[in-house]
Amino acid sequence: MRDGSHVVAHQFTREQVQAVAKGLDDAGVPYIEVSHGDGLGGSTIQYGRSLVGEMELIEAAVASCKQAKVAVLLIPGIGTVHELKEAQNRGAGLVRVATHVTEADVSAQHIHIARELGMEVCGFLMMAHSAPVEKLVEQAKLMQSYGAEAVYVTDSAGALLPDQVRERIRALRQSLDIEIGFHAHNNLSVAIANTLVALEEGATRIDGSLRCLGAGAGNAQTEVLIAVLDRMGMDIGIDLYKLMDVAEEIVGPIMPHSQEIRKGSLVMGYAGVYSSFLLHAERAGKRFGVDPRDILLEVGRRKAVGGQEDMIIDVAAELAKLQKAGG
Amino acid sequence: MRDGSHVVAHQFTREQVQAVAKGLDDAGVPYIEVSHGDGLGGSTIQYGRSLVGEMELIEAAVASCKQAKVAVLLIPGIGTVHELKEAQNRGAGLVRVATHVTEADVSAQHIHIARELGMEVCGFLMMAHSAPVEKLVEQAKLMQSYGAEAVYVTDSAGALLPDQVRERIRALRQSLDIEIGFHAHNNLSVAIANTLVALEEGATRIDGSLRCLGAGAGNAQTEVLIAVLDRMGMDIGIDLYKLMDVAEEIVGPIMPHSQEIRKGSLVMGYAGVYSSFLLHAERAGKRFGVDPRDILLEVGRRKAVGGQEDMIIDVAAELAKLQKAGG
Repeated sequence: MRDGSHVVAHQFTREQVQAVAKGLDDAGVPYIEVSHGDGLGGSTIQYGRSLVGEMELIEAAVASCKQAKVAVLLIPGIGTVHELKEAQNRGAGLVRVATHVTEADVSAQHIHIARELGMEVCGFLMMAHSAPVEKLVEQAKLMQSYGAEAVYVTDSAGALLPDQVRERIRALRQSLDIEIGFHAHNNLSVAIANTLVALEEGATRIDGSLRCLGAGAGNAQTEVLIAVLDRMGMDIGIDLYKLMDVAEEIVGPIMPHSQEIRKGSLVMGYAGVYSSFLLHAERAGKRFGVDPRDILLEVGRRKAVGGQEDMIIDVAAELAKLQKAGG
Repeated sequence: MRDGSHVVAHQFTREQVQAVAKGLDDAGVPYIEVSHGDGLGGSTIQYGRSLVGEMELIEAAVASCKQAKVAVLLIPGIGTVHELKEAQNRGAGLVRVATHVTEADVSAQHIHIARELGMEVCGFLMMAHSAPVEKLVEQAKLMQSYGAEAVYVTDSAGALLPDQVRERIRALRQSLDIEIGFHAHNNLSVAIANTLVALEEGATRIDGSLRCLGAGAGNAQTEVLIAVLDRMGMDIGIDLYKLMDVAEEIVGPIMPHSQEIRKGSLVMGYAGVYSSFLLHAERAGKRFGVDPRDILLEVGRRKAVGGQEDMIIDVAAELAKLQKAGG
């Protein structure tokens, strides 16, 4: 429900979070993530205000679970130690400290403190497609050195193809002593395939969301993943029928729209950019008479980081100049 | 628009077919399939009446295309030589003669006649997941011997996983002298991944549908496939932006519902059964107090063929008896 928070514009109610958490817990899912879509402290004018405070939602999820651990996401710079302590107070047992793939060093303090608090703690390297494999390995090792118990390859833009996932997980498996996780987005329709490859290469922590309820085209669809693993003969102790029922009867009615792959999410995966860039590119495209897709492709090539939405205007202006010169 | 005909309950209008065909042709797609969802002659009470006769739709598509060849599907037993000739008269240039994966012998006559008519002709082995690889190879060789210029591995139930596709295409590549095709369904969310594997193993004909507009969860999503191939550096002469626009602006408004993976299509892929079985299983489940998913799983194990919907009642009755004995 953390990544899914984006889909509902952070308007989850306490009852919705309770019902989904109860359903996932009952089906045997071991971790359930609850926070604002941009992690602890994300409820702001910039990232979108939550309807219900995330601490209340965390508490509600914890109260609904018999076996599952409730997880939170924390992006240093958005969330702080203050919120981390509060989340732990409310019963969160795992924190994933998330940074851009080249910025692992900003996670040191939060990983240390989470360990001191007695929480399980993972590193979460976002936009993993945008860095060379060696860089990814180097940054994952940093997180390991800070005390992370696992590091995730996070395909935030849904831009990785199966062979690229294979290369990355394999390199981490050869270089790390801790667990490896994989977080997929389905913008290029390969979230499940990428997840299977990650498992094959030794990843042991896998993210999913029921009905693909995550940013862009969503994540690996949990109920589909479990069906596929079951078909492959892997029994991981999760009840497929129960998951399917939660997906259909509880998550479905919460969804403001279906999570098919539309133009916007496809461009996001194709260009390798954050979903927050889409609207800006459309506006700039109109203003400068340039196809927004060309803007996003160029922004992707320049490997823009979240928060660098300004780059879009510069790129649009440059493309417009080139078009004029060309025509 | 042949597989997509199922999604709209065969209610395509002439204008819709024209607009989609024009858009696909303009983007550079080489083949466009138009027929009733169950192939030529499928417009019946049993398979669902078409709003507009398929011959009129074929003619409309042909008139809209500058470079693309219009294809038709023919399932012997539903369609006949009479309809094939008429389709060719209206301008169809390719026919795919479709049989259950173990019944290739019923395609001999239609393949012969299509060749005599000067049409391009392919074999189309449906429910390819349900036969052992050796059987598939044997049946494909039969179609080759009848004069097919290509044979398709058709994953009608969307039940194949990437490794299973690899095994099948590889075996065909080693045994056939003609082209190999692959037709995916996305019920297990691996349509694109399966298609990539098929291409890797030497398939040269690939099916897709814009916005996944096909039975169940739909086919490999054409615009996503082209984006992925482009990202892999394969330029196959199809304009991605044009495709995306047709998907969004022309196909989108035609869709009666989104093509996400819902409970029904997931069960179909998981159990390996035809979508036409779903409603029957739900009815039988209610009548006998059995979970319809268990019925479909057992029907899948027994490898039911299209038309064998009666088996559902038998299975439901047996499961109810077992439940009673067990409880």
